[in-house]
Amino acid sequence: MHSNELGVVYTDIERPDPAAVEALSAYGVATVHEAMGRVGLMRPYLRPIYTEAKICAPAVTVLLQPGDNWMFHVAAEQVQPGDVLVAGCTTESEDGFFGELLATSLRARGCTGLVIDGGVRDVADLTKMDFPVFSRAINSKGTVKATLGSVNIPIVCANAYVNPGDVIVADVDGVVVVPRDKVAEVAEASRKREENEESKRAQFKDGVLGLDLYGMREPLEKAGLTYKSAKGSGA
Amino acid sequence: MHSNELGVVYTDIERPDPAAVEALSAYGVATVHEAMGRVGLMRPYLRPIYTEAKICAPAVTVLLQPGDNWMFHVAAEQVQPGDVLVAGCTTESEDGFFGELLATSLRARGCTGLVIDGGVRDVADLTKMDFPVFSRAINSKGTVKATLGSVNIPIVCANAYVNPGDVIVADVDGVVVVPRDKVAEVAEASRKREENEESKRAQFKDGVLGLDLYGMREPLEKAGLTYKSAKGSGA
Amino acid sequence: MHSNELGVVYTDIERPDPAAVEALSAYGVATVHEAMGRVGLMRPYLRPIYTEAKICAPAVTVLLQPGDNWMFHVAAEQVQPGDVLVAGCTTESEDGFFGELLATSLRARGCTGLVIDGGVRDVADLTKMDFPVFSRAINSKGTVKATLGSVNIPIVCANAYVNPGDVIVADVDGVVVVPRDKVAEVAEASRKREENEESKRAQFKDGVLGLDLYGMREPLEKAGLTYKSAKGSGA
Amino acid sequence: MHSNELGVVYTDIERPDPAAVEALSAYGVATVHEAMGRVGLMRPYLRPIYTEAKICAPAVTVLLQPGDNWMFHVAAEQVQPGDVLVAGCTTESEDGFFGELLATSLRARGCTGLVIDGGVRDVADLTKMDFPVFSRAINSKGTVKATLGSVNIPIVCANAYVNPGDVIVADVDGVVVVPRDKVAEVAEASRKREENEESKRAQFKDGVLGLDLYGMREPLEKAGLTYKSAKGSGA
Amino acid sequence: MHSNELGVVYTDIERPDPAAVEALSAYGVATVHEAMGRVGLMRPYLRPIYTEAKICAPAVTVLLQPGDNWMFHVAAEQVQPGDVLVAGCTTESEDGFFGELLATSLRARGCTGLVIDGGVRDVADLTKMDFPVFSRAINSKGTVKATLGSVNIPIVCANAYVNPGDVIVADVDGVVVVPRDKVAEVAEASRKREENEESKRAQFKDGVLGLDLYGMREPLEKAGLTYKSAKGSGA
Amino acid sequence: MHSNELGVVYTDIERPDPAAVEALSAYGVATVHEAMGRVGLMRPYLRPIYTEAKICAPAVTVLLQPGDNWMFHVAAEQVQPGDVLVAGCTTESEDGFFGELLATSLRARGCTGLVIDGGVRDVADLTKMDFPVFSRAINSKGTVKATLGSVNIPIVCANAYVNPGDVIVADVDGVVVVPRDKVAEVAEASRKREENEESKRAQFKDGVLGLDLYGMREPLEKAGLTYKSAKGSGA
Repeated sequence: MHSNELGVVYTDIERPDPAAVEALSAYGVATVHEAMGRVGLMRPYLRPIYTEAKICAPAVTVLLQPGDNWMFHVAAEQVQPGDVLVAGCTTESEDGFFGELLATSLRARGCTGLVIDGGVRDVADLTKMDFPVFSRAINSKGTVKATLGSVNIPIVCANAYVNPGDVIVADVDGVVVVPRDKVAEVAEASRKREENEESKRAQFKDGVLGLDLYGMREPLEKAGLTYKSAKGSGA
Repeated sequence: MHSNELGVVYTDIERPDPAAVEALSAYGVATVHEAMGRVGLMRPYLRPIYTEAKICAPAVTVLLQPGDNWMFHVAAEQVQPGDVLVAGCTTESEDGFFGELLATSLRARGCTGLVIDGGVRDVADLTKMDFPVFSRAINSKGTVKATLGSVNIPIVCANAYVNPGDVIVADVDGVVVVPRDKVAEVAEASRKREENEESKRAQFKDGVLGLDLYGMREPLEKAGLTYKSAKGSGA
Repeated sequence: MHSNELGVVYTDIERPDPAAVEALSAYGVATVHEAMGRVGLMRPYLRPIYTEAKICAPAVTVLLQPGDNWMFHVAAEQVQPGDVLVAGCTTESEDGFFGELLATSLRARGCTGLVIDGGVRDVADLTKMDFPVFSRAINSKGTVKATLGSVNIPIVCANAYVNPGDVIVADVDGVVVVPRDKVAEVAEASRKREENEESKRAQFKDGVLGLDLYGMREPLEKAGLTYKSAKGSGA
Repeated sequence: MHSNELGVVYTDIERPDPAAVEALSAYGVATVHEAMGRVGLMRPYLRPIYTEAKICAPAVTVLLQPGDNWMFHVAAEQVQPGDVLVAGCTTESEDGFFGELLATSLRARGCTGLVIDGGVRDVADLTKMDFPVFSRAINSKGTVKATLGSVNIPIVCANAYVNPGDVIVADVDGVVVVPRDKVAEVAEASRKREENEESKRAQFKDGVLGLDLYGMREPLEKAGLTYKSAKGSGA
Repeated sequence: MHSNELGVVYTDIERPDPAAVEALSAYGVATVHEAMGRVGLMRPYLRPIYTEAKICAPAVTVLLQPGDNWMFHVAAEQVQPGDVLVAGCTTESEDGFFGELLATSLRARGCTGLVIDGGVRDVADLTKMDFPVFSRAINSKGTVKATLGSVNIPIVCANAYVNPGDVIVADVDGVVVVPRDKVAEVAEASRKREENEESKRAQFKDGVLGLDLYGMREPLEKAGLTYKSAKGSGA
Repeated sequence: MHSNELGVVYTDIERPDPAAVEALSAYGVATVHEAMGRVGLMRPYLRPIYTEAKICAPAVTVLLQPGDNWMFHVAAEQVQPGDVLVAGCTTESEDGFFGELLATSLRARGCTGLVIDGGVRDVADLTKMDFPVFSRAINSKGTVKATLGSVNIPIVCANAYVNPGDVIVADVDGVVVVPRDKVAEVAEASRKREENEESKRAQFKDGVLGLDLYGMREPLEKAGLTYKSAKGSGA
């Protein structure tokens, strides 16, 4: 199983512990990305089709060919309740690979959303359905069904590497990939981060400065930061 | 009348049968684009200034010069109730060619909206007025009135060819051009397509797969698609 | 005090007359930009993180280093109630320099918003807080605190020059910079412009054409504009 | 014959007078574009694959589907000696539609070059062959042969409208379309323009200013241009 | 060893058989990409800094942080004669991570070139040295040495997945990644492809059409392709 | 004199010491940018129209209006031998503001080149003349002469602030602005930097690693860098 294999569908992929996915789903993308050590983020050109769209689910991966959505139908059969589809493409293609009919089919299979390095359409309907989609474009251009890609191989989507079964966390801040075997660990690190932020938040609300809270004054001075009065500076 | 003519205004353009336009207005852009055979779509960089913006109307065309909106005032006189303005430019220019005052004037003439391969401003006011605009940018930069373009010549707008009197269908999925003499035909093809989709939608909701509904298993196998178990694949 | 000075914080910057800022706050960006003579506009790639975001406030300026938000903490101390932070960067960088914790800290200091030629995150929280931000990207990528920039030097932000104390007006139409010593004058010019537009608006509503209202028919004819009938033109 | 017709090849297209094409070939794109009245220019994202690439020839037009170059083989049969291929696509697609083998085939048919709103590959070989190509991308990604487009219908290429038989002039300054029935007229206008420029060039070389040569001082003054000394301006 | 590991350097990576790399080096990117089955291509925004730049070598991989080139110095020690450096970044960053001094150091270690999803500088010197570089930007902006990335972990570079030891083939047509264990196989497939193309090339030169050579007439007819005369079509 | 003043020409601007400019001209953009402390760089989208183009000269600044090159003729009169023209625009505009006739006029005045945040044309002629131009686009689209900008006010060009009389250094690595009163100082800092680099270069050539030359091993270890063997890592 490698990212260059075409014309293949992997069945029986491993999925992460549902309890760990559930735990992770409490956190937003920015928090999870920090908890991961600032890796695993997809390019920010992926945007939700509506502001409230959110996903936290194991990935069924799809490798598409440009202007061709054949593999989505193949992938639908591999989806288990709770999965999200994640689609990369062998090249840049912003056509409308996905719309309301496919979403209807996928929802019937229990699919919880779509992340696609490509275009989608029927955006008003998808929004009404509350079917969360993160895409690089909104585009009515229809696609053909002529060339094989693959399902459930490792793919690159919006410059991030995704293995089938990795967990995708997506919200208005972006899309991040959590490796299948790190889900529980990242959920716990996210929890700690939020806990830690809570006490900071309280202090910030009280007017404490980050300069003092983080002890930055000394390192800033060492780095050479200088304060001058703007009066008489000719400004 | 050709797309390279400058400094001219065509009056008395032919418009399509209003009943056909009315019939077409029942369908969204993705459907109409499919019903057209997947042609006539403008580039997806044209976006509505508010999500619910919708247009289905015959085009009064405008050829603008960069940073110059003189021709909009000329075009306003050519607008008849129910028309939409469609504006291309002799070059790429994202200045704010259009705002609330022009919209007020155009609405008084019965104009139903604007599609522009350029920028617009006063977006909050236009939204409050529910004046639908599809543009490539939101930009406050004002424009001058110094150089002639044309009105009601054939133009290219966002890479699509538009004849005056062609019908523009626009919604959150994009903008498509329906030739004046095809409006009834495309409305009918759209109707059939939606009808056909209705039965598919019902089956998808019941959990039928596209693989079976579209009879894809055999062609996929012929194309060489292979199923493998992920277990023991080293994934 | 010049735009190439690194590792410095100017304190005691001059701010404009609060009454003038208050007067200016009645007008939108498009109006203010016109009242300025069509200069001072930032590039339109800066967008509000939510549609209703609005700012009219004196600038505390920040020069950031790529992927580094150390200077925001330094800037927080320089903020006075009513100020807005305006951040440029020494290079193009769309990382998430700013999020909800910093916004909480800044709000506690009286800060009214942020304009940044970079990325931000925690967009859902910032929206809930109604903390207006205009940015070039939404991006979860975290930043480090390693390299000095400056605070309250003149900066270039999204291709516009900003002195500390200049007033930033921002809304859905974009972001414009009003020099500190012109605020009252620009507020007054904005008032006159709106007054003047009011009478035009009334006439446009009555169906008067811009061609007549602005006396354009003669200059258009002089420029060579020709009217032809589309009938028999082979269209 | 219209720009929305799919699955059709027009044979027997009309071509312009070869003598007029020959006359036009003496002029560069900037000159021809001016002689046309500043219309007919393709978007500047089309670039030559090598600096010296030049074309002046009647167009055989091709409408491609994304990631699919089937129609190039159909078009090859329609090429007559001296023609250039001009290819648009039903959507944005930067795959490598064209390479050295196709160029070899086309050259054997007398084809003089290619303009494509898409990608090409084998650029080193094409350069060695001195086969001029203007494209939007260089991209090795191969294409399939699965979906029909059309040959010799009117197309839009890089936002310009092209009828089969129109003359394409292309060089390092860009690509311009000259309507088939205007070739002689535009060649003559180009000749006059160059003649006129020759005398200006001589005066510019002698140090005459455009201000004087074009009589701009009075209109500039009327427009309100003011001269001030920088001394004592606080600069 | 996975693509999310920060702050680690893998030593003793496996490299492919030098004879296989040598065999592969006879072929260009377009050929190798086809021989791979049209996968493994980096995004076409990576361009050579000079037209003749060419690379065929095993990858030492580098994961950079934005605006920070510390890891290049770490990577230099891991380079063995004949290797190429391949650098991705945790975010989009076009700063000048690499210049002539680093190239001098790397050449002394036997390094044969650089592929970077970022910017480089000293381009004139690098060209004079004939040190091949493929980058997304040319940019003088200097970088800091403050934050850890990694060396010789699997990375994503310009949307392609690269394992240390994979072979990078790069020329004016782009950059493609050949998995370490497929180098000999892909070299052989490339050889066959070129052999096969040689006979086609000869027939194309003789004027044989692709329509006949590839037997396309029948499938085109089945797909519904129609020939019409342009005479009398109203064109 | 401020960057928002329209319709004005400043004469008698101060220029830097010619000896200092001459001294600075020995160094490339990357070196000068470092010597400046990594500030003053224009955006890297400005590219030379030919690879060998180079400029080191005091700026006569021009503020253009979109699609309008009137101010170039006004600026020509202000040019003194050795100056370079630097042109910003009140908005983004990639039209062909400048071509061979203007270059001929400017060269006759002693002008040494052009930096423009816009488009240029006649690129083949400009190359033949060896008239160095750095622009954001090559575009044949002609411009009008209708609206006033300014000459010799401070401008923003490609996101950098330029005062008239500042020195522009430009080569294939980009464009940097050196404040008029820092030219000698930056030339000296550039000299020292190159001197310092010479000894490093010699050591790099001898195979010394940056890790040792810069003493990086300890800080890397402190930052937590770990070395692992790839053998047995499952890679």
